[in-house]
Amino acid sequence: MVADLAHDARTDDVPEAEILARVAIMRMAEPGDQVMGRLIARYGAVAAAAQAQRGVLPAEFVSEEIGRARAAGRPPTLDRLAASWVARYADPVRDLADGREQGARLVVPGDPEWPTQLDDLGDRRPYGLWLHGTVNLRFACLRSVAVVGARAATAYGVQVASELASGLGDRRWTVISGGAYGIDAAAHRGALASGMPTVVVLASGTDVCYPTAHQDLFQVVRSQGVMISEVPMGSRPTRPRFLVRNRLIAALSRGTVVVQAAVRSGALNTATHANELNRHLMAVPGPITSEVSEGCHDLIRQGRAVCVTSVQEITELVGTIGGDLALVRRGPAHPRDALNDETRRVLEAVPTRVGAGPAAIAVSAGVDLSTALSCLGALAVAGFVEHGDRGWRLRREQDG
Amino acid sequence: MVADLAHDARTDDVPEAEILARVAIMRMAEPGDQVMGRLIARYGAVAAAAQAQRGVLPAEFVSEEIGRARAAGRPPTLDRLAASWVARYADPVRDLADGREQGARLVVPGDPEWPTQLDDLGDRRPYGLWLHGTVNLRFACLRSVAVVGARAATAYGVQVASELASGLGDRRWTVISGGAYGIDAAAHRGALASGMPTVVVLASGTDVCYPTAHQDLFQVVRSQGVMISEVPMGSRPTRPRFLVRNRLIAALSRGTVVVQAAVRSGALNTATHANELNRHLMAVPGPITSEVSEGCHDLIRQGRAVCVTSVQEITELVGTIGGDLALVRRGPAHPRDALNDETRRVLEAVPTRVGAGPAAIAVSAGVDLSTALSCLGALAVAGFVEHGDRGWRLRREQDG
Repeated sequence: MVADLAHDARTDDVPEAEILARVAIMRMAEPGDQVMGRLIARYGAVAAAAQAQRGVLPAEFVSEEIGRARAAGRPPTLDRLAASWVARYADPVRDLADGREQGARLVVPGDPEWPTQLDDLGDRRPYGLWLHGTVNLRFACLRSVAVVGARAATAYGVQVASELASGLGDRRWTVISGGAYGIDAAAHRGALASGMPTVVVLASGTDVCYPTAHQDLFQVVRSQGVMISEVPMGSRPTRPRFLVRNRLIAALSRGTVVVQAAVRSGALNTATHANELNRHLMAVPGPITSEVSEGCHDLIRQGRAVCVTSVQEITELVGTIGGDLALVRRGPAHPRDALNDETRRVLEAVPTRVGAGPAAIAVSAGVDLSTALSCLGALAVAGFVEHGDRGWRLRREQDG
Repeated sequence: MVADLAHDARTDDVPEAEILARVAIMRMAEPGDQVMGRLIARYGAVAAAAQAQRGVLPAEFVSEEIGRARAAGRPPTLDRLAASWVARYADPVRDLADGREQGARLVVPGDPEWPTQLDDLGDRRPYGLWLHGTVNLRFACLRSVAVVGARAATAYGVQVASELASGLGDRRWTVISGGAYGIDAAAHRGALASGMPTVVVLASGTDVCYPTAHQDLFQVVRSQGVMISEVPMGSRPTRPRFLVRNRLIAALSRGTVVVQAAVRSGALNTATHANELNRHLMAVPGPITSEVSEGCHDLIRQGRAVCVTSVQEITELVGTIGGDLALVRRGPAHPRDALNDETRRVLEAVPTRVGAGPAAIAVSAGVDLSTALSCLGALAVAGFVEHGDRGWRLRREQDG
């Protein structure tokens, strides 16, 4: 239901050449490669893709990168990197068609569905994202919390992850996590139980089911949430890719909750990203006799994470951003008066029953398309409006 | 073995009249009564006892107390208080004999065995303490940690309290706690298992076994540690007395560890005292699904307590005071060079085998008695010297 919205907007805003270039880069470069990030930032995706495909980089760029490597005391590896780009090139038209055949959609920076908080990643921003699911990623992540932790979770950890996620869903917060056994899966199951969208961030292509036992879970996520990936269809997950993937989980959400983590755990890598990105970092305590709580206790002791023990403690922390909407959430009657001017004008422009597209609503409200989309997303998570088959309309309990 | 030391020192330092006055006050006034504390501070224990016994207080004191009550918005209750003192008076010679018959000894401020850290309590300092046990209270508390928590502890709490206490004992730290079921008892059992002294702070007289099921435990404490109380023999514990007692647990120790505590728990009262006295406050996390960990998590979240998960984390915190000795403790060879000048002179003066009294050691080291006692206590907990039947001597592994 949201795919067409994303598609419409993309053809409006992002030129086809840019899309194909980014698809080519997603094939050639490893996710989060900062050299590629700088190449794109400097020359644009189209030129960067062409340079990478030929393995010939501008002399000034090469000289800067060599200087950068020397300053950091690293041997320059640019030749090897460029060679790997050339070797990995594949036709982006084919990749794009592949993804769409699988039922996925591509979003790139500039698309209305692009979650702009990913821009905080700077040179490590994803080149593009494959999404597979019914939910608009940007809107879903407006009010989102990452719930992460150990694969080897205990019964306690699974229970806590599931209950926190379902409680977050009850309060209209989207849950973001990986797709692993243990805490990740428990968090998604809890979120799904609350009826709210959940976002699975994969280290593989969206068409690769890893672990294979999560086929059913991922199927439900596709219908009630969204699976996302920054690598092409068919890509297998590797250990480095799991670590690089973690920056997306941290960056997409307003805060990360570590439910259980041993001292050397991938979840602590996500925690580090959350700290670096100035997102809220939270950790759930547990028995000091349990190894999978040691990482959480370390985070708390080091002052890197806030100790949280309930959904309310989490939302108190992450809810401080966008306080006006949190206020609406707490109020019993969702009074329109609590909204700011622009958001109220957009709300007035949303039809009661039939549904309207964001462009029509933007015109009617007298705001630009981007503002309309942002307001609609906010109004949706606050429960004022909903997006159906035929566009945006008021939620029934707001009728009249 | 230490009782005679305390006795010798007391008859030297504190006049009999002062001792009897304090015993009388322990009978007349409730522990921690700040009015009595101020009366003693102003007129001395002997005069204060005489005034309380007659129920006639100096006019200037009365007027000040009335002013103080008015400023605090409390109705003046001095008449009632003084009347209760008169009513509760009993012959101190009899109380003193009673205690000694029970096998207890009295220490008062000025005695060498008086733990001077209790002076931090100001007007709420105990009038005197009854001790029953083989251990010198002052020395035992030089390196001590309070381990407190819920009576209704879970198996997890009991295990943690016992293991932390025994680990503290292994590192030559004394454990201090109350005498209740649950965390208190588990802490003492752990400490006793390590062979180190443990200190039970009672809300009743040292001859009253409460709870009665702890008769065997208290018997072991008397032989390997010390039971202490600020109320006369035969006094029953009351709820207010438990709360007032908690200030002693906090004040005697370098820091308090709350192992488990529900949101409304006496252990949190001890925690408040620790905060007020600027002692280290620590809390052990637990499952967020457990009510008896809620108080601990609150303390951590409020930044009032440091989250601790191991003995090492506790000793790192409390060991920062007297860092030189902690340094010695960590070193493999206990080098004498690490000691300060005074302490090394005292150590040189301690005989190898026969043993010597503190006065002789003080003369030989060229320091005063109080310094000698303080250094001997520190040297004892650091493992350099020990106190035997015939006085202080070097520990065997330090011979030669």
